[in-house]
Amino acid sequence: MKIGIIGLGLIGGSLAKDFREENLEIYGVSRQEETCINAQKRGIVDYASKDLSLIYQTDLIFICTPIAKIIPTLAAIVPHLKPETIVTDVGSVKAPLVKTCSELWTNFIGGHPMAGTAEKGLDAAQKQLFKNAPYVITPTETTPIQAIQTLENLVKKLQSVIYFASPEEHDQAVALISHLPVMISASLIKTVMGETNTQVLELAQKIASSGFKDTSRVGGGNPELGLMMAQYNRENLKQSLLDYRQILDQIINHLEQENWQALESILDFTQNSRPKFL
Amino acid sequence: MKIGIIGLGLIGGSLAKDFREENLEIYGVSRQEETCINAQKRGIVDYASKDLSLIYQTDLIFICTPIAKIIPTLAAIVPHLKPETIVTDVGSVKAPLVKTCSELWTNFIGGHPMAGTAEKGLDAAQKQLFKNAPYVITPTETTPIQAIQTLENLVKKLQSVIYFASPEEHDQAVALISHLPVMISASLIKTVMGETNTQVLELAQKIASSGFKDTSRVGGGNPELGLMMAQYNRENLKQSLLDYRQILDQIINHLEQENWQALESILDFTQNSRPKFL
Repeated sequence: MKIGIIGLGLIGGSLAKDFREENLEIYGVSRQEETCINAQKRGIVDYASKDLSLIYQTDLIFICTPIAKIIPTLAAIVPHLKPETIVTDVGSVKAPLVKTCSELWTNFIGGHPMAGTAEKGLDAAQKQLFKNAPYVITPTETTPIQAIQTLENLVKKLQSVIYFASPEEHDQAVALISHLPVMISASLIKTVMGETNTQVLELAQKIASSGFKDTSRVGGGNPELGLMMAQYNRENLKQSLLDYRQILDQIINHLEQENWQALESILDFTQNSRPKFL
Repeated sequence: MKIGIIGLGLIGGSLAKDFREENLEIYGVSRQEETCINAQKRGIVDYASKDLSLIYQTDLIFICTPIAKIIPTLAAIVPHLKPETIVTDVGSVKAPLVKTCSELWTNFIGGHPMAGTAEKGLDAAQKQLFKNAPYVITPTETTPIQAIQTLENLVKKLQSVIYFASPEEHDQAVALISHLPVMISASLIKTVMGETNTQVLELAQKIASSGFKDTSRVGGGNPELGLMMAQYNRENLKQSLLDYRQILDQIINHLEQENWQALESILDFTQNSRPKFL
C-alpha cells in the first residue's frame, strides 16, 4: 500500500515513521526542499518531493498541512487522483472541513489524531507519538464504508484509541475539552496581569505555585493555535463560553449571597465529576 | 528555644520535623491521643499532649489548626502565656485572622507557608516540605520588630523563600493566583458536565487530554478547602471573579465580532506574560 503524506511536520513526520515500521511505502511532500532532503536522508519516507504530483498514484493520502491549507491542498490534487484513492486529514476541527472536502472528493474521510508535543516540525517527529492517544474518525452518512475501514485499519497500526463521531459532535466535544480551556486559562493570566496594585501583582507573580501554573498552562500557549481554534470552531466555542459564563455567574452569586451550601455542592460535584475525564 | 506546635497535621508535623533537626525543643499538641503517641514515638516532637497547657511555657507557638480554629485556639491560650511568647499561624488567608489575633495578643504575627501535598495528617508530614517554597510573613504596623525577626530567623531554617507583605496584599495576591483558579477550574468541569448531548459528553470525557486535565485539576480538588477560601477571602475572591468575568466578556465579544486581531493580541499577551509567574 502506498501512503501519501502532505506536510512533513510533527504529525506528518510521526505518521511516516510509524507507517514505515509497518513496511508501507511512504511518499512525502513538503513545501521546503530542506525538509524533503532530510526526510529522505533519515529514512522517514521512501520518496520526497516539493511537487504534489509525487502522491497522485498513492492509495491513501494524509493531508497534514496547517488547517487553512487543507481545502486548497485537496482541491489542487483531486483532478489527478485515481478514483479509489482515499484522502484524510488531521485537522483539529472537523465540520467545516469535512463538508467541503467530501464535496470535493467522495473518498474523503476526516480524522483527528489527538497527540502532540510543544515542539513543531520534522525534527520533533517521533515514533509511537499516537500510541494510546485518541484518534477520532469522523465519517458522514455519505462516506464510503471502504474508506472508513481502510483508514481504521491503518490507524490501528498506530496503536491509537479509535473513536468514531460525526464531525459536529467532534467539534462540540473539542470545544468543551480543548478550546474552552484555552480561553478560560488565557482569561486567568490576563486578569492577574490586570491587577493595578503593583505590590500585589509582584507578590502574586512570586508566590504563584502549581495551582496557578497548571490552570494557566494552555492559556499561555501558542497564540496561533488558539486563534485557529476560535476561527474554525467559532460557534461551538462561543456556545461553550456562554454556558461557562452562566456557571461562573452562579458561583459569583453564591459568593455574594454567602450561600455556602450551594457553593459546596458545586465543589462536591466537580470533585466527583473530574475522574470521569481521566 | 522551646517551640510549641498546635495541630500535628501535614503542616505542623512537617514544621516539627525540620525544627527538631535544628535541635530546637518541640512541644506538640493534638486533639487526638493517637497522634500525640505517634508523634512522640517517632521522634517528631520532644513532648506531646492533648492538653494546651503543654505549650504555655514555650517561646514561639505555631498554630497549625484548620483556619476556623485559629482564633478560638489563640483566645484559649493567651491568658496563660508569658508576655514575651511569640505566636504565629499558618492560615492561607491573613487579614481577618491577623486583625483579631493581634488584638488578642500583641506578640502575634501572621504567616503563610505555601507548601503542601495532596495528603493530610501527621503521616503525610515530611522533612524539607517548605524548602524553596514561598513563606509569606504578614506583620502589621503594630507588630513588634522582635517578633518579626524571631519568626524570620526560624523560617530561614526551613530554607523557605521568605516574602513580607501586609495581610491585605497577601489576601489579594492569593485570591488571584490560588482562589480564583479554583473557581474558574471548577466552572470548567461543571460546564462540560452540563452538556446535554450525551454522545458529545461521552466523547468529551474520552478524549479529554492534558490540556483539560491541567486546567480542571484545582477545580476537582478538596471542596472543603475551596469553600474555606471563599468564606475567608470572600471580598477579594469576588472582586477577582468580577474582573475575570470582564476579560471573559471581552473574549466572547471578540469572537462574536470575529475581531481576530484583538483576540490574537490577548493570546500574544498571555503567552508573553505567563513566564513572569514561573
